[in-house]
Amino acid sequence: MTAAAPAADLDWLATRLGWRPRDAALATRALTHRSAAGADNERLEFLGDAVLSFVVAELLYREFAAAPEGDLSRYRAALVSGEVLADVAEDLDVGSHLRLGPGELRSGGFRRRSILADAFEALLGAVYLDAGLDSARGLVERLWRTRVAALASTPPPKDPKTRLQEWLQARSLGLPAYSVERVSGEPHEQQFEVRCSVAALGASAAGEGSSRRRAEQLAAERVLATLDGGGTAP
Amino acid sequence: MTAAAPAADLDWLATRLGWRPRDAALATRALTHRSAAGADNERLEFLGDAVLSFVVAELLYREFAAAPEGDLSRYRAALVSGEVLADVAEDLDVGSHLRLGPGELRSGGFRRRSILADAFEALLGAVYLDAGLDSARGLVERLWRTRVAALASTPPPKDPKTRLQEWLQARSLGLPAYSVERVSGEPHEQQFEVRCSVAALGASAAGEGSSRRRAEQLAAERVLATLDGGGTAP
Repeated sequence: MTAAAPAADLDWLATRLGWRPRDAALATRALTHRSAAGADNERLEFLGDAVLSFVVAELLYREFAAAPEGDLSRYRAALVSGEVLADVAEDLDVGSHLRLGPGELRSGGFRRRSILADAFEALLGAVYLDAGLDSARGLVERLWRTRVAALASTPPPKDPKTRLQEWLQARSLGLPAYSVERVSGEPHEQQFEVRCSVAALGASAAGEGSSRRRAEQLAAERVLATLDGGGTAP
Repeated sequence: MTAAAPAADLDWLATRLGWRPRDAALATRALTHRSAAGADNERLEFLGDAVLSFVVAELLYREFAAAPEGDLSRYRAALVSGEVLADVAEDLDVGSHLRLGPGELRSGGFRRRSILADAFEALLGAVYLDAGLDSARGLVERLWRTRVAALASTPPPKDPKTRLQEWLQARSLGLPAYSVERVSGEPHEQQFEVRCSVAALGASAAGEGSSRRRAEQLAAERVLATLDGGGTAP
């Protein structure tokens, strides 16, 4: 990462992203963290995040024509996580082209991965504005091809309640308990708040949602997030 | 809402949505709740939700060229809330064209608004697949025009911490207290869990996020959600 790269590296953009900007200033902005001088990439990140979610949603809708909505949602959450975005940005070597302020340069690796993830989204937003939806879609399809193919060859992800139960059972830690802590709102628009507790671990987390089931899933997901490895391996 | 409407009402779609489906079965599916027989609208709802978020994000990005990212995010959340979607669906009279199963018919108004909101998203997904992005964008721009114009004539929404503080001060209820309950994750990818407490009300809620500030905002937002009118009026 450099503090004063004067403008975006057009050769790099063409080679690695397949993007030859008509508006080079847009590319420079996409690579400018808010700690640096000049127009920063935060608005482009907002737009690029929306482009990415939409393009991935459509890709999954078409690719997994028989998958229920719940699987599509879980697939998408996995594909556009901050972790994956940071990996994509690192593969592209976005870090070498970022414009950061002196404070961020001093802090070194700190927060580096989330800054990279955000910068990738900003780049995608810039590609969309500059070259159109088909270009942005083509870029995402190319960069995500392997990850989408991997989904097709693995069973659909399990929901958080199931994963938590399996994780606990594999360790003989008993079952989680779910209790409704609060129900609010009009009868036809109720909001549930549920706590998921694992007595053996002294762990608990709350979840909320428009149904008891959704609130339980969110609470289970938050407990999972506190477990070793995020509860990914049973 | 009717249980056995044989197919989508093409005149209604043309008049109210400006959509003349090439694929009438797609329109029927968009209007079929999962409680009814036949292919339901849940996958289309997933796609339509993504289309809506993207179209609204771009609309805001272009319309509010000087707004910081935080304002754009808050504007979007307000524009695509379940409340607004249900209002849009009611204005369009989606309810009269929905296909519901006998169970849902018996339950009457219960859950009706969220079913309407979901059906609108499914219709938007169907318009996108059948007629393309420009048609879907045109529909959203027409249906949201007044709401977007209203944003332009009001000051940007305040962040949740500010709103909570103002709501409490207007009632002489003191200041909220924020405490960090948990910090987890690697140093460069920390996750914060913060509790926001209002002693005078005996109210509290937790929020989590990748920074202390974000976690505090989320916690404040959840406390606000429990107050009269969602704390909208100071």
